[in-house]
Amino acid sequence: MNHQQLTGLIQKKRSFLCIGLDSDPEKIPPHLRSFDDPVFEFNRAIIDATIDFAVAYKPNMAFYESEGLKGWKSLQKTISYLRNFKDSVFTIADAKRGDIGNTSERYAKAFLAEPPDGFGFDAITVAPYMGEDSVKPFLKYPDKWVILLALTSNPGAFDFQTQKLQNGHTVFETVIQKSLGWGTSENMMYVVGATKAEMLADIRKIIPDHFLLVPGIGAQGGSLEEVAGYGMIKNCGLLVNSSRGIIYASNQTNFAEAAQEEAFLLKYQMEQLLSFHSVVG
Amino acid sequence: MNHQQLTGLIQKKRSFLCIGLDSDPEKIPPHLRSFDDPVFEFNRAIIDATIDFAVAYKPNMAFYESEGLKGWKSLQKTISYLRNFKDSVFTIADAKRGDIGNTSERYAKAFLAEPPDGFGFDAITVAPYMGEDSVKPFLKYPDKWVILLALTSNPGAFDFQTQKLQNGHTVFETVIQKSLGWGTSENMMYVVGATKAEMLADIRKIIPDHFLLVPGIGAQGGSLEEVAGYGMIKNCGLLVNSSRGIIYASNQTNFAEAAQEEAFLLKYQMEQLLSFHSVVG
Repeated sequence: MNHQQLTGLIQKKRSFLCIGLDSDPEKIPPHLRSFDDPVFEFNRAIIDATIDFAVAYKPNMAFYESEGLKGWKSLQKTISYLRNFKDSVFTIADAKRGDIGNTSERYAKAFLAEPPDGFGFDAITVAPYMGEDSVKPFLKYPDKWVILLALTSNPGAFDFQTQKLQNGHTVFETVIQKSLGWGTSENMMYVVGATKAEMLADIRKIIPDHFLLVPGIGAQGGSLEEVAGYGMIKNCGLLVNSSRGIIYASNQTNFAEAAQEEAFLLKYQMEQLLSFHSVVG
Repeated sequence: MNHQQLTGLIQKKRSFLCIGLDSDPEKIPPHLRSFDDPVFEFNRAIIDATIDFAVAYKPNMAFYESEGLKGWKSLQKTISYLRNFKDSVFTIADAKRGDIGNTSERYAKAFLAEPPDGFGFDAITVAPYMGEDSVKPFLKYPDKWVILLALTSNPGAFDFQTQKLQNGHTVFETVIQKSLGWGTSENMMYVVGATKAEMLADIRKIIPDHFLLVPGIGAQGGSLEEVAGYGMIKNCGLLVNSSRGIIYASNQTNFAEAAQEEAFLLKYQMEQLLSFHSVVG
């Protein structure tokens, strides 16, 4: 999915919500355990209930890998199911991968290549620590995206990312600046945590046009209004993620309705913000 | 496997060789393709041929993930096979993972927990960009190891890792220094590329006792003598990895013998170096 299509989707759905499918077999409703693949049943129900309100879905690989082969089957079924809605959802592999060039090529194939060669996600999150040759292999797939970690939402972000380099800029600013030479606003986005929303204003000075993937509202405490206030641009330029706040809104038989309600509430706020910032009429 | 056991293994085998099982289905010998699981057959033959000369094996996850479910089955069989030699090999999941705390916990389970909960590797490589809470969950498993990326062997290492912070230290030195508060030399190692061997002397000033995992000799151009000269300590403290130089020494039916010869040559050099530096008598 290209930049224009993603922007069109946001305008059509009047939402910039991304739902994180961090689906933990121990946290999903107990009544699903009798299914052959409880995690897939859970994901399918969540997707069906929320697809009118979300523009993107983001399974985090850790929750699937930790279940071994069973987990990979659940993931494969989930991405296949999402691909039924190909033109109306943007799919993100939250994988935070990155390795030397010839190895990153393999990760790129795994997540971005179309089936049967790969999962066929629209985008993958990538860790920047190993630099240019670890990121570039992910940029070779047309209409696919690298979402580079810049300033993450967790406490550990202050360990290295916000440290100042001798060039006067922080590590995360330097990651953004340097990576501008690797891709464009048509194939790169950046992760910027909602818990550091006030830093979005400075980030927008470096990347006025790029999409940002913003985790950390809800369970992690970030504010949607602040994120939009500091980070929204004329075509929106934001995907704001919520995981636990939506998918675990209830662990009873009504979990999908509860997730729908949470997604609707966020979408409703987002619609107001899109209108307030004149992204939609 | 704990520090003492690993050191004992190095002394017994008179080797500090780690073999990278970066097993690419397109590069393994064509005659293996008729097997049900060519990658596992390849790995098993390589392991059998080299186990007297290597102390560690390091499958890189990218090469398995990129083959989908089939790849995960090959990986599972490979680690099960390696666990037959539990006391005589150290196993490393080269995964370069790292995510917010609750998510890193899942990766830790996937790779470090004993079967059937996880793969049961002895160690996992971890990317430091997201800081303390992204690394600590991997340190909760007794006698298991985090191998933190510090200074990697690829050209992109110069993009961020070697940049100087305002504290006067480079990013990678700061990663090492800060992480000393998260674990000990009994559960943390660091990746330092052989292509930057001369930097090992400075690194040893910060971490005189920690094991280092050193990739980049062979295909990437690093020198074993330099690595030992700058990085070896009284109990060795090094695991030096070779992947392509060993496993793809031949792609004919003699591939295992060719791999054995390459592993033997490295082991022979290592034995000399261990003796020269008085690690073994």
